[in-house]
Amino acid sequence: MKTAIIGASGYSGEELVRLLSRHPFVELAMVTSRSLAGKRLADQMPALRHLVGELAFSASDPAELAANTDIELFFLALPHGVASEFAEPLFQAGKTVIDLSADFRLGSASLYQASYDQPHPAPHLLEAAPYVLPELADDAWKAASLIACPGCYPTSIQLPLVPLLRAGLIQPKGIIIDAYSGVSGAGKKVAENFIYCERNESMRAYSLPGHRHVSEIEEQLGRAAFTDCVVQFSPHLAPMTRGISTTIVAQIKASIGEIYSCWEKAYADKPFVSVLSSGTFPDTKHVTGTNRCDLSAIHDPRTDNLVITSVIDNLLKGASGQAVQIMNLKYSFPETAGLL
Amino acid sequence: MKTAIIGASGYSGEELVRLLSRHPFVELAMVTSRSLAGKRLADQMPALRHLVGELAFSASDPAELAANTDIELFFLALPHGVASEFAEPLFQAGKTVIDLSADFRLGSASLYQASYDQPHPAPHLLEAAPYVLPELADDAWKAASLIACPGCYPTSIQLPLVPLLRAGLIQPKGIIIDAYSGVSGAGKKVAENFIYCERNESMRAYSLPGHRHVSEIEEQLGRAAFTDCVVQFSPHLAPMTRGISTTIVAQIKASIGEIYSCWEKAYADKPFVSVLSSGTFPDTKHVTGTNRCDLSAIHDPRTDNLVITSVIDNLLKGASGQAVQIMNLKYSFPETAGLL
Amino acid sequence: MKTAIIGASGYSGEELVRLLSRHPFVELAMVTSRSLAGKRLADQMPALRHLVGELAFSASDPAELAANTDIELFFLALPHGVASEFAEPLFQAGKTVIDLSADFRLGSASLYQASYDQPHPAPHLLEAAPYVLPELADDAWKAASLIACPGCYPTSIQLPLVPLLRAGLIQPKGIIIDAYSGVSGAGKKVAENFIYCERNESMRAYSLPGHRHVSEIEEQLGRAAFTDCVVQFSPHLAPMTRGISTTIVAQIKASIGEIYSCWEKAYADKPFVSVLSSGTFPDTKHVTGTNRCDLSAIHDPRTDNLVITSVIDNLLKGASGQAVQIMNLKYSFPETAGLL
Amino acid sequence: MKTAIIGASGYSGEELVRLLSRHPFVELAMVTSRSLAGKRLADQMPALRHLVGELAFSASDPAELAANTDIELFFLALPHGVASEFAEPLFQAGKTVIDLSADFRLGSASLYQASYDQPHPAPHLLEAAPYVLPELADDAWKAASLIACPGCYPTSIQLPLVPLLRAGLIQPKGIIIDAYSGVSGAGKKVAENFIYCERNESMRAYSLPGHRHVSEIEEQLGRAAFTDCVVQFSPHLAPMTRGISTTIVAQIKASIGEIYSCWEKAYADKPFVSVLSSGTFPDTKHVTGTNRCDLSAIHDPRTDNLVITSVIDNLLKGASGQAVQIMNLKYSFPETAGLL
Repeated sequence: MKTAIIGASGYSGEELVRLLSRHPFVELAMVTSRSLAGKRLADQMPALRHLVGELAFSASDPAELAANTDIELFFLALPHGVASEFAEPLFQAGKTVIDLSADFRLGSASLYQASYDQPHPAPHLLEAAPYVLPELADDAWKAASLIACPGCYPTSIQLPLVPLLRAGLIQPKGIIIDAYSGVSGAGKKVAENFIYCERNESMRAYSLPGHRHVSEIEEQLGRAAFTDCVVQFSPHLAPMTRGISTTIVAQIKASIGEIYSCWEKAYADKPFVSVLSSGTFPDTKHVTGTNRCDLSAIHDPRTDNLVITSVIDNLLKGASGQAVQIMNLKYSFPETAGLL
Repeated sequence: MKTAIIGASGYSGEELVRLLSRHPFVELAMVTSRSLAGKRLADQMPALRHLVGELAFSASDPAELAANTDIELFFLALPHGVASEFAEPLFQAGKTVIDLSADFRLGSASLYQASYDQPHPAPHLLEAAPYVLPELADDAWKAASLIACPGCYPTSIQLPLVPLLRAGLIQPKGIIIDAYSGVSGAGKKVAENFIYCERNESMRAYSLPGHRHVSEIEEQLGRAAFTDCVVQFSPHLAPMTRGISTTIVAQIKASIGEIYSCWEKAYADKPFVSVLSSGTFPDTKHVTGTNRCDLSAIHDPRTDNLVITSVIDNLLKGASGQAVQIMNLKYSFPETAGLL
Repeated sequence: MKTAIIGASGYSGEELVRLLSRHPFVELAMVTSRSLAGKRLADQMPALRHLVGELAFSASDPAELAANTDIELFFLALPHGVASEFAEPLFQAGKTVIDLSADFRLGSASLYQASYDQPHPAPHLLEAAPYVLPELADDAWKAASLIACPGCYPTSIQLPLVPLLRAGLIQPKGIIIDAYSGVSGAGKKVAENFIYCERNESMRAYSLPGHRHVSEIEEQLGRAAFTDCVVQFSPHLAPMTRGISTTIVAQIKASIGEIYSCWEKAYADKPFVSVLSSGTFPDTKHVTGTNRCDLSAIHDPRTDNLVITSVIDNLLKGASGQAVQIMNLKYSFPETAGLL
Repeated sequence: MKTAIIGASGYSGEELVRLLSRHPFVELAMVTSRSLAGKRLADQMPALRHLVGELAFSASDPAELAANTDIELFFLALPHGVASEFAEPLFQAGKTVIDLSADFRLGSASLYQASYDQPHPAPHLLEAAPYVLPELADDAWKAASLIACPGCYPTSIQLPLVPLLRAGLIQPKGIIIDAYSGVSGAGKKVAENFIYCERNESMRAYSLPGHRHVSEIEEQLGRAAFTDCVVQFSPHLAPMTRGISTTIVAQIKASIGEIYSCWEKAYADKPFVSVLSSGTFPDTKHVTGTNRCDLSAIHDPRTDNLVITSVIDNLLKGASGQAVQIMNLKYSFPETAGLL
């Protein structure tokens, strides 16, 4: 099966190229980028020199792509707003589209407008596009041909919380989330704030209290809890390239044993979630370069809080790895194909 | 005035050597270390080669130190438990002692036993030893000759919270604290967990939920609030040498304007606390190498929480810089002497 | 085909576990470690949790291993001196042994004694054990069953130099080599010099002028040049986990075009050597996590020197990746199997 | 005495602000920057919040500055070419100017043109402007009012080599220099190549063989050797913020004892050069934040080479610290004033 990556000039795009180039069941037939059109991938992504042969970036006209009869599956690694320009014609042409942008992550156009300060570019497609965090979505999504891939912070938050909220084991109110992301979370942004000497040996919060991912988080947690969730989410930058470390405090309504039973049931056969024993703490280093989420929790009897920590690689389980996992599941490849 | 550092083999000890060697009003006359006795500081602390001349580590017998007629002020940079062995004879001999260990930070021997798993080595001295976070302590402490210097996490937490709790502007219950420390927070510990390849590109929680600093934090916050405080404190390791980034969520009982007025009043003439405008976020990089605490806060109207972030250099405002600041105030030197 | 790793407690051992667990044509049937016997790999190598299932470390008696009828191929990831204790009985039992230690890298027992300050533990095996840098060794080695895998610095040095010396395009005298290694080059050594705070933000030389790898380098370069080579080799530590950056200055005896023709001929069909155009400089970041060596050179007309820079991942092309590449070639698997 | 910094928007400018704000004998009366005019230093250089009070950047018209009757000494922290626009009127007005740019480092306008691809902007001033590496310059320079401050790489190279070349203890031909610089060596440049994710965990060469600093290095070494010097200089980027690690190979014409005697004589009373014993290796970490150069050497009897390693903080001894040291000497302040 032939695949294409649309808009592959950033770090997520590069990871997708890596994963698809090594994938046993698909071929990476096209990689597009407006800014890099005509250039060889081997020169622009020198870390992948041994994988990409003579492949070159092509220009990316949505209509032309939609007319392509060769390629079955398109990954969109584009900024929000831009992704829809491609998603729409590809969807209409019957292609499968896995979108890594925020365009189809929220359930309503109004929420999108509130979060992204612009009208939703294709509101009529929202209903057709399921939000697929593979471990948590029910199988109905596999029939869809336009799929929204969750963001990095939301993935690290939903994997521990959603099963517990569904089972009613924690309070849906008053959840406090603190997260630190490696700098690649900002993409390949060229700005003074992201040059090496500014970020090295530095930690700081940003975008409090209104980070854009909050609406995605709250919408998904609310669906799990069958009630509105309002979370306190504080994102930070950390002096490393990859990884998200998330710490969550929630009021417990059950024993720590019940928490663990719930997780073990939810993730028993899920190859990319590791539930660590209580008192063992996940480390971003252990998931870097993998599609795994490691998580664990302790119960603090003094406060009756559950304190959860979870870690992912923001570019893999938080973006490109997850997108490939979605592809694997949709096309009935082994879930781990190309991801070990 | 002649000063000595007892137990200077670690990172805090080294920072104290640096600060006292450059201090305009005191002389660093003696530096002790059991393990390094006889060795030149210039060889053991090569970063300070230009500052320490031919000074060598001496051995450190408490009785002998107490009999020394030359030295007026002793800084103890020793592990908890060991510090008391020196504090007691020095105190009895009428010396001034600034203790960077935990031995005199807690108000009762029973709390010490619960936190440090050993009986307090000198409980009869607890009353004589004030806990001095200079910006928050009232001036009575200056008469004391045995002074407990606060720990690094507690400093980054008390500076933002104590004025607000004293003024009743936040709820004393349900405070959630998340903190990330540079690796020097673990001292010069030689263990697999602290070698470069394990800590680089890595973030993780540790010691949840019962970190030893919790009792110090809760005792001090409780005094400020005039009621028991129970906090949820989650410490983490971050991939950098120095700095603590602390994020605190508390329920607000006032407007953000009142929060800021309170802070501005508390810190108007305090050279080492910078209150940043709401929406500007402190960065550990900006306080590394300084004795400053930078802090700011936002009010999230969706949750009615106050979200505070504060940063310090764990080895300076969190240890050695604070100790020198205490000395400056006790001896009526300018508060910033040797600390700019 | 079943394989085993003997002595897998260090970083090279961990990389071997990763590579062999994912390898399409072999099974990792046993992993031994004296210090970790009985423990699960998933706990000791948490980065590999998703790959190692329930495999546990076993104890490692040489005679017992030699009697094992199940396992065909043994990788030795042991310290020098210790490796021979296993190599000998395994070799006698007709097993294939790929040794990552220094025990069989040098051509004579006397050179080994001079370099490692101890008698060679199995001098009678030296002749049976070819030194195999796969891109440079001729095919005769494939018949051998005891194979010495080259060290990390020597690999980064030989790949650029050997073809040029064989072709007589540079002077074999007066070669100056400067190299910086990531900290994992020291292995998982727990010592003050390797804790995070000592190595972060730090660069320094070490072991000048007599680094142990010098004899391996000079012996191999001498064989290529058909004359004695004496090099000036200066190793350094760099503040990163993985990667070696090597810069070599040699007097040129040909044009830069002839240098490049020589390299292109030598490496035309070699998947793990990338010859970059003159003026493009290799970057350790681009080879981290790969088995590649990237190299390039410029001719400085002012000095008539050839200045070469080459980079490898010290744990992959400099150790475990190379060992797997050797296995692939010996067993006629595709050279890149399990290495992309 | 009042001083001003012209063009303080970069990292060297920031270090100058830090040093002059704390200096016991001068006042920092003005800081200019075209791009930041009107903004408070406390906001633009948040690391210096406690030092800079309400000082704001001013605009920077050369004529106006020259007419200023208040300020005696001007530091130019400007790009090459631009510095001369200020140096000329200030010099004509009788001000003292310490120039951190390259404009007055080379002895001739033609060499400048060859190195910087543009005509020298003020060739008639070249003779009036001594090149002052304080430990090596003879005292005549103190009469000058326009002074060229050496660059970072050249400082780390000249301090070890110049005394040896003057004494004829090494061959002036065939010197090989390999240097790794922290990323701040590139200044506060906002470009993809300098964002965190590109430079972290990365080492690479750049600008081989024609780095601009080569002419400055060769001119100065040639003056010391009384003969032309042609060096092989290979600069690299290293994954750290500050520090230069330089390794130099030269053919020895004396014993290692004579080398050390020469250095010890040259640097006996120099507070900012530490000569480490042979076999002890300088570490960039030990000089970060200081104005020191640490250096040592070994003699390799196998090659008859002297191998020198030296380290400096590129922003201090390689730029701003050195400029302040020059000021101290010119105005007969203690050489270390404000620099410990």
